[in-house]
Amino acid sequence: MNIFEVLGYLAAILTTISFLPQVFKIYKTKETKSISLSMYIVLTIGILLWLIYGIHLKSLPMILANSITLISLIYILLMKVKYK
Amino acid sequence: MNIFEVLGYLAAILTTISFLPQVFKIYKTKETKSISLSMYIVLTIGILLWLIYGIHLKSLPMILANSITLISLIYILLMKVKYK
Repeated sequence: MNIFEVLGYLAAILTTISFLPQVFKIYKTKETKSISLSMYIVLTIGILLWLIYGIHLKSLPMILANSITLISLIYILLMKVKYK
Repeated sequence: MNIFEVLGYLAAILTTISFLPQVFKIYKTKETKSISLSMYIVLTIGILLWLIYGIHLKSLPMILANSITLISLIYILLMKVKYK
């Protein structure tokens, strides 16, 4: 594995786990006022399409990363609607 | 181009433009309280690494998508620090 492949995997890990702090913040504060609902609707649909594309490509990293991201996004989306 | 390739391009477009509504919301309200700083720090580093990986792969779609996303993320990050 060369340095760029390492960077690629690191990129995938970071962008996947990045939404967890937002999940925990909402869980703790029950507050979503400054979060954009449109952003999370568009992003959730986009990640769902990445997941479908990953399943089509039989790419385990894409399936794993996008599944975890999707779960975080759906939680943030539901909480945004709940605490609107 | 088959249906899955179309889905892949659509996924890339949606995940790239998804941050724009958050950019406009912050610009309008000057409010970032419920936004997670950690999320945007980790996500910005992750997207920067995707961009470097895309440059290495000479993939124009990856370079374009991640550059646009990076600009949105840096704006959100700076405003989060400013209106903290």
